[in-house]
Amino acid sequence: MRTHYCGQVDKRLIDQEVTLCGWAHRRRDHGGVIFVDLRDRAGIAQVVCDPDRAEMFRTAESVRNEFCLRVRGRVRARPPGTVNVNIASGEIEILCHEIEVLNPSLTPPFQLDEENLSENTRLLHRVIDLRRPQMQKNMQLRYRTARAFRRFLDDAGFIDIETPMLTRSTPEGARDYLVPSRVHPGQFFALPQSPQLFKQLLMVAGFDRYYQITKCFRDEDLRADRQPEFTQVDIETSFMDEGEIIGLMEELIRTVFAEVMAVELPRPFPRLSHHEAMRRYGSDKPDLRVTLELVEVSDVLRDVPFKVFANVANSEGGRIAALRVPGGASLTRGEIDAYTQFVGIYGARGLAYIKVNDVSQLNETGLQSPIVKNLHAAALQAIIERTGATSGDLIFFGADRRKVVDDALGALRVRIGHEKGFVNGNAWEPVWIVDFPMFEYDDEARRWNACHHPFTSPKDEHLGLLASDPGRCLAKAYDLALNGSELGGGSVRIHRAEVQEQVFKALGIADDEAQSKFGFLLAALQYGAPPHGGLAFGLDRIVTMMAGAESIRDVIAFPKTQRAQCLLTDAPSGVDEKQLRELHIRLRQRVDTQVEIGKA
Amino acid sequence: MRTHYCGQVDKRLIDQEVTLCGWAHRRRDHGGVIFVDLRDRAGIAQVVCDPDRAEMFRTAESVRNEFCLRVRGRVRARPPGTVNVNIASGEIEILCHEIEVLNPSLTPPFQLDEENLSENTRLLHRVIDLRRPQMQKNMQLRYRTARAFRRFLDDAGFIDIETPMLTRSTPEGARDYLVPSRVHPGQFFALPQSPQLFKQLLMVAGFDRYYQITKCFRDEDLRADRQPEFTQVDIETSFMDEGEIIGLMEELIRTVFAEVMAVELPRPFPRLSHHEAMRRYGSDKPDLRVTLELVEVSDVLRDVPFKVFANVANSEGGRIAALRVPGGASLTRGEIDAYTQFVGIYGARGLAYIKVNDVSQLNETGLQSPIVKNLHAAALQAIIERTGATSGDLIFFGADRRKVVDDALGALRVRIGHEKGFVNGNAWEPVWIVDFPMFEYDDEARRWNACHHPFTSPKDEHLGLLASDPGRCLAKAYDLALNGSELGGGSVRIHRAEVQEQVFKALGIADDEAQSKFGFLLAALQYGAPPHGGLAFGLDRIVTMMAGAESIRDVIAFPKTQRAQCLLTDAPSGVDEKQLRELHIRLRQRVDTQVEIGKA
Repeated sequence: MRTHYCGQVDKRLIDQEVTLCGWAHRRRDHGGVIFVDLRDRAGIAQVVCDPDRAEMFRTAESVRNEFCLRVRGRVRARPPGTVNVNIASGEIEILCHEIEVLNPSLTPPFQLDEENLSENTRLLHRVIDLRRPQMQKNMQLRYRTARAFRRFLDDAGFIDIETPMLTRSTPEGARDYLVPSRVHPGQFFALPQSPQLFKQLLMVAGFDRYYQITKCFRDEDLRADRQPEFTQVDIETSFMDEGEIIGLMEELIRTVFAEVMAVELPRPFPRLSHHEAMRRYGSDKPDLRVTLELVEVSDVLRDVPFKVFANVANSEGGRIAALRVPGGASLTRGEIDAYTQFVGIYGARGLAYIKVNDVSQLNETGLQSPIVKNLHAAALQAIIERTGATSGDLIFFGADRRKVVDDALGALRVRIGHEKGFVNGNAWEPVWIVDFPMFEYDDEARRWNACHHPFTSPKDEHLGLLASDPGRCLAKAYDLALNGSELGGGSVRIHRAEVQEQVFKALGIADDEAQSKFGFLLAALQYGAPPHGGLAFGLDRIVTMMAGAESIRDVIAFPKTQRAQCLLTDAPSGVDEKQLRELHIRLRQRVDTQVEIGKA
Repeated sequence: MRTHYCGQVDKRLIDQEVTLCGWAHRRRDHGGVIFVDLRDRAGIAQVVCDPDRAEMFRTAESVRNEFCLRVRGRVRARPPGTVNVNIASGEIEILCHEIEVLNPSLTPPFQLDEENLSENTRLLHRVIDLRRPQMQKNMQLRYRTARAFRRFLDDAGFIDIETPMLTRSTPEGARDYLVPSRVHPGQFFALPQSPQLFKQLLMVAGFDRYYQITKCFRDEDLRADRQPEFTQVDIETSFMDEGEIIGLMEELIRTVFAEVMAVELPRPFPRLSHHEAMRRYGSDKPDLRVTLELVEVSDVLRDVPFKVFANVANSEGGRIAALRVPGGASLTRGEIDAYTQFVGIYGARGLAYIKVNDVSQLNETGLQSPIVKNLHAAALQAIIERTGATSGDLIFFGADRRKVVDDALGALRVRIGHEKGFVNGNAWEPVWIVDFPMFEYDDEARRWNACHHPFTSPKDEHLGLLASDPGRCLAKAYDLALNGSELGGGSVRIHRAEVQEQVFKALGIADDEAQSKFGFLLAALQYGAPPHGGLAFGLDRIVTMMAGAESIRDVIAFPKTQRAQCLLTDAPSGVDEKQLRELHIRLRQRVDTQVEIGKA
């Protein structure tokens, strides 16, 4: 039907006849001539309709925005002064010989270049929204990114194997999406939260290197960057140790960024232990573009008169950290109030600070703060030395349970860093976080939880700690963070059944429970399971960052809202009573009206 | 951990030291020496353990089948007479210096070379089953096939776009798998039966060329070649007509077969109208390797005394067809009885036949059959002429409703063709079936159903028939059959809202029903939808044929049984009452015991 994409017509085609198909992006009349900007996925070409061809001109007059057209014409140079250097076809225009309306269009619900549309409007009219050049670019970017992942993995000998979507429910971790079975009354499939167990089984089955770009599902309340269904680049390999896996995966990410973004990431990526990341950045996915760091001061505050600090400093699970803001003494009261409110989101009950007016006077004269009088000289001295503060700086303090301090000061560090320009100027700062703890203690449930998942291998030298001191046991786990977001994470897995059983024991999972939930894995481990490990990258997140988009919904063709709805197709919806009967379920509350009218 | 794959070690590596990882495929002692066939995904290498290295030898003695090993040793030529030309590493062996048991193995539930295992045993121990070289090959084949599809489509400018897995239920066609919504009580998502509507929306959104290799779901009772979840290569393009789409898709299949199988398919594929396919082969996916054909004889049997034939010949929806079997006069009574039973599967109530003993005598002497005396000379003459029968042949007859005759004689044609060698010797016979009817009449429901789906475009010249004579209206639909199986099918879609509405009307879908189910599509068509069409290939089926496997379960890593269960993970399973409560559903019958103990 056509000879070229609109966006590909350029001056090499001058004097040739072309046929284009696309949409009327804009139509304007100018001096008796009609100009149509014809758009397809490759870009825009300007079509000029002269009145000397009457029939063609009449058709052109009928064209409105978003009509689908087919145009035949001759390529010619644009008159001087009308060249648009911003687009590939900006030096030419097409003198129209023939125009055909393939399909007219109603007036679109919004103009394609309209900004500040509400997201609901965009999602309700997603088909029109997807026509916007930015969304076209985002979907192309997503495609090229996934393709770059595939090609690297293909070349590295990984093979793509599909794992089931209808799987067994393992009610831990996040909430499962369930699928009632028609054939087996009262039983349910679950949609996979990840192919974790299947990819381990594939390693035991000897496939050696596996990958899959696949949908995963979590029925959780959605935050800004979450979706009920999301896409993972899922990878597993046998016969490689932690360092080799990290090295290969790093090469993968480096290749993807180079191919898709023409960005050269550092070689190698820096590596931080989980312990150090928390200490210096309060985060296991630190934004290393920000140059500010947290400083540990608990040990010098144990005997200060200021009870808030002393109590935390002497408590088991507490932390006091300082964050120096160079030149921060000029922060306004309003700014400090805003920061105080901000850390409140993370559970901090306040935000103590010291303005360093004169670093040569470590007292209430040189240091401006209500708390200074309750800190003794040694403490003040240590704080100034460790933070490296100088006159004109400001030091924020977090003092609370460790998690609150990490979250609050970690987030404040990033916010101030970007707001006040304490950044190193690099666009991309990847970092591996390694040496994660195996377990974290759940104070409420009074038990140990797995930091990664229960199939993660402990460090060889920490096997003995599984029973004696699980809190000190480190894992062969690794996360890759980029600019403060987690790109992916993984681990070397347990490949020996007896270690897996010890870990289940440390997690308080009884033998029969382990058998009933993971019996097939425990069985598989007994038949010569190879050493193996892997990783999963979040494709949506990676593409969102690459696109510079605000939300992952901008890199998904048909996303759900934060209320887990598809506004376009109006899903979920009521279903026929007959369908429920076949599935051996009924609605818990009487919402028959909903079922009948299809929708609440 | 290793330097090479086992299957890759060959004589070019002689005298070099290699490190291999893999599984003990076989261990045997021979003259005081231990031989271990070490297996990985690339193949097998023979490892020789001499007793002169005592520690290594002791370890080798402990090795049993399926132990996971790491072996270091020197490559050397095998002694003359022990060369195995069937495997890449058959000319060499590895003189073992060091052997490490990475993980021992219990005695496997079956030997990897055991044949005639029950499928249930294989699925229950799928991890071991997948280690079998044939299954390794099948999964590799599947991977290479999917990759070949992707690469062709990438190169042809198609972009891979993901469509949702949690979609809206449209209760027609097959039964949906439903997913209860937690956030919206009483409402449900459905798993997609295909991305049909989404890919059409992507065309309306201007993505021009789309593909996706994706899971689809149908909750139907399973036949031998069906799975609840199956994989489609889903393709859609704008601005191409029926012929162009067929041409490009044919090139795609030709390329995939050439790359993956080194098979050159014919260029071009033959094309048959649906009408001709049914007439000559009784099937819309004819096996063209078989040279036998059906012959129409209804018209010459209208006035014969044999009532069974005359009644069918004079009925509206009846068909009488003949199938000549060259040399078939020598078929035994037992064979003919077996064929009669076979056509019974398809609803045929009998299988009339004539043995042509002497073609020069068209009477009860030359033609041996109980029905001959009730057929008149003109009929017999016509039957012999049309079938081209000669002395020694046999002619089978099907006389019934058209569908019964098509199904029964179509299947008989294929069975006899392969059993008796009436085949053309070609390994692969692709054929396009085109010019499908738009609608088929459902006698029970007394309404027209869509032959493809309700979004298929009628032929331009048949638009007028939509209202006046839907039965004669042909569609821009096409199926690709190979060796009697459907590889895929598709159509040009309706891109104008008013045509879509006419088709809904012809199907008896009321306006409000159309709006509530497909309103988003009808709306999208009103905004300059481009002409578009596409196709979907069944990946599982294609790979099954390529692999020469008996069942699609042999090309799926973790398939479901025909009772829609995963024996390995024991899914579906009972779930916690709490999960059901969160989803606002309860079980219809009291099967609490099942829920509590997790499984009936």
